[in-house]
Amino acid sequence: MLQTMEWKNKSLLLLNQTLLPNSAEYIECHNYRRVAEAIKRLEVRGAPAIGAAAAFGFVLGARELCNSYDFWTGIEEVAEELRQTRPTAVNLFWAIERMLSVVNKSDKLSDLTDLVLKLEQEAIAIATEDREMNYKISQYGAQLFNEPVSILTHCNAGSLATAGLGTALGVIRQAFSEGKINRVYADETRPLLQGSRLTAWELMQENIPVTLITDNMAGWVMKKNMVQAVIVGADRITLNGDVANKIGTYSVAVLAKEHNIPFYVAAPISTFDFSMESGFDIPIEERSASEVANFAGISTAPEGVDVFNPAFDVTPNTLVSAIITEYGILKQPYNEEILKIQQKIKGVL
Amino acid sequence: MLQTMEWKNKSLLLLNQTLLPNSAEYIECHNYRRVAEAIKRLEVRGAPAIGAAAAFGFVLGARELCNSYDFWTGIEEVAEELRQTRPTAVNLFWAIERMLSVVNKSDKLSDLTDLVLKLEQEAIAIATEDREMNYKISQYGAQLFNEPVSILTHCNAGSLATAGLGTALGVIRQAFSEGKINRVYADETRPLLQGSRLTAWELMQENIPVTLITDNMAGWVMKKNMVQAVIVGADRITLNGDVANKIGTYSVAVLAKEHNIPFYVAAPISTFDFSMESGFDIPIEERSASEVANFAGISTAPEGVDVFNPAFDVTPNTLVSAIITEYGILKQPYNEEILKIQQKIKGVL
Repeated sequence: MLQTMEWKNKSLLLLNQTLLPNSAEYIECHNYRRVAEAIKRLEVRGAPAIGAAAAFGFVLGARELCNSYDFWTGIEEVAEELRQTRPTAVNLFWAIERMLSVVNKSDKLSDLTDLVLKLEQEAIAIATEDREMNYKISQYGAQLFNEPVSILTHCNAGSLATAGLGTALGVIRQAFSEGKINRVYADETRPLLQGSRLTAWELMQENIPVTLITDNMAGWVMKKNMVQAVIVGADRITLNGDVANKIGTYSVAVLAKEHNIPFYVAAPISTFDFSMESGFDIPIEERSASEVANFAGISTAPEGVDVFNPAFDVTPNTLVSAIITEYGILKQPYNEEILKIQQKIKGVL
Repeated sequence: MLQTMEWKNKSLLLLNQTLLPNSAEYIECHNYRRVAEAIKRLEVRGAPAIGAAAAFGFVLGARELCNSYDFWTGIEEVAEELRQTRPTAVNLFWAIERMLSVVNKSDKLSDLTDLVLKLEQEAIAIATEDREMNYKISQYGAQLFNEPVSILTHCNAGSLATAGLGTALGVIRQAFSEGKINRVYADETRPLLQGSRLTAWELMQENIPVTLITDNMAGWVMKKNMVQAVIVGADRITLNGDVANKIGTYSVAVLAKEHNIPFYVAAPISTFDFSMESGFDIPIEERSASEVANFAGISTAPEGVDVFNPAFDVTPNTLVSAIITEYGILKQPYNEEILKIQQKIKGVL
């Protein structure tokens, strides 16, 4: 399995996901600006992976500031620049807050080199914890399946989207190893084809049977009884269990309901936004028209065509059969279950 | 408006739709084999256009056979070769049957040159009638809208799919001219992008406001109340009102139901298969994996990936709000309404 990211010799290596599967090249990020750029350009993508990458970017930013006049203002600017890269996945903000709380807890008169070391440890902890969460999610998720099923997934919530096994694909990996998966149907996931470029590629690497379909085939595949479950990742989950995820997820969820197929979401707690009541309030990133109107530099639409290109949509909790987290499997009523986890994290329970 | 096909100097000119919108080139078909090839390669596509093109191909085949030893066996072979090009759109078989009935009605001892002339007149009649049907469908369809709406369409059921104004886009053209259309959302329609390459292009040519979306955005566009109706064409409609159309149509129909949005189908009677009870029996063409795994020669998926690539799906009549034909607007129960039209055609009513 290729590593999505590696912290090496005090710089961050990121597997350039825009080039997969045609080539596997690493980008060497020596400063936080390059990390921010990689997040914006989707060279690294997937909510948990973005969070971990931003944490390492924060370390690079802090190190640069060690010799500056005003570390404390500068580090806020680093945080803000990293926050500005993408608006929807909450793991990004969560990771930056964790890094900032290390900064805020530190003694302003102590050695900055010490602080940078602590920040490095925190970033490594975020990546390590993500790996552990992925493992737990995989174990819990596989329990949802009793007999072998074929499963549909949308976009990529695999090892490429995380620091570890993946969320949705982590569950698929584990369930497959337990003999519970016959085949995975991967939506290609336009416009940027994360399903064909990344998910199909990840699964083929591990000899998990995968069939690639265009997004508009999902309904027909369900109608023909070719899949018995859907599992996807998430970019942000609100207190009521609404799920923001890659554009097209909402359509898949509606189609799953129509066909009485369970629709599962796999995500670590870092994807939960405890400050937001419902999915209505989630900011949805809109990306460039050229992503839809071109492919690999070739125009696929009339010049100057108007394009609507939201990168995410929101699936209401009523369409979600279960949310698989490292704390276990959540079911309706989500607001109660999510509140319990929040209290557990705070140490109340 | 560019002509989709033109019968000129005893040969058939076909606008090569695989090159649109980047270039507008005509293919000159001097023999029926080239017409058959054009249908297979989708250089001409859209159910009514395929029917008309096959009729002209039949004329070219008949002319070639004028000096052969056995015209009568040969013409059956021409018919069969044209039939074998694509399995789903019924207009193809309908047009070939019409041409064969001219052959069968002719006196076997009469001059073959005369017969070829009659065949040419029949093919021209098929194209002319298609234009007239499109006009009537457009007029009827526009009556469905009372106030300005935004409308979603899938694939291309425009002038490029017919010999005339188009079916779904014919209705849109007419409704727009009556001030009843605010904007059209065009699904790009993977894998071959007829929505972005053809529909967006047709609408832009006529200054009808169009916004291009990827197929997986349709549900989100509905959820956000951006469209108030869906209209598509059809490749085959069975006696019970089930509709075969471009892959993805079924998903759009389910999504429309979920959002209480009417889902309209516009198609001439040549698209109806009066020999088939329900959509279960419609043969669905499966096309090459390379259409999904490549774009313009560039690989978009891992080498050797398994692909499912049905070119059509079937929308059950329960999801169809109305079918717009040149005989008027059909509503549930479709089997009764379609039976009435069949009897009208037979001269019973």
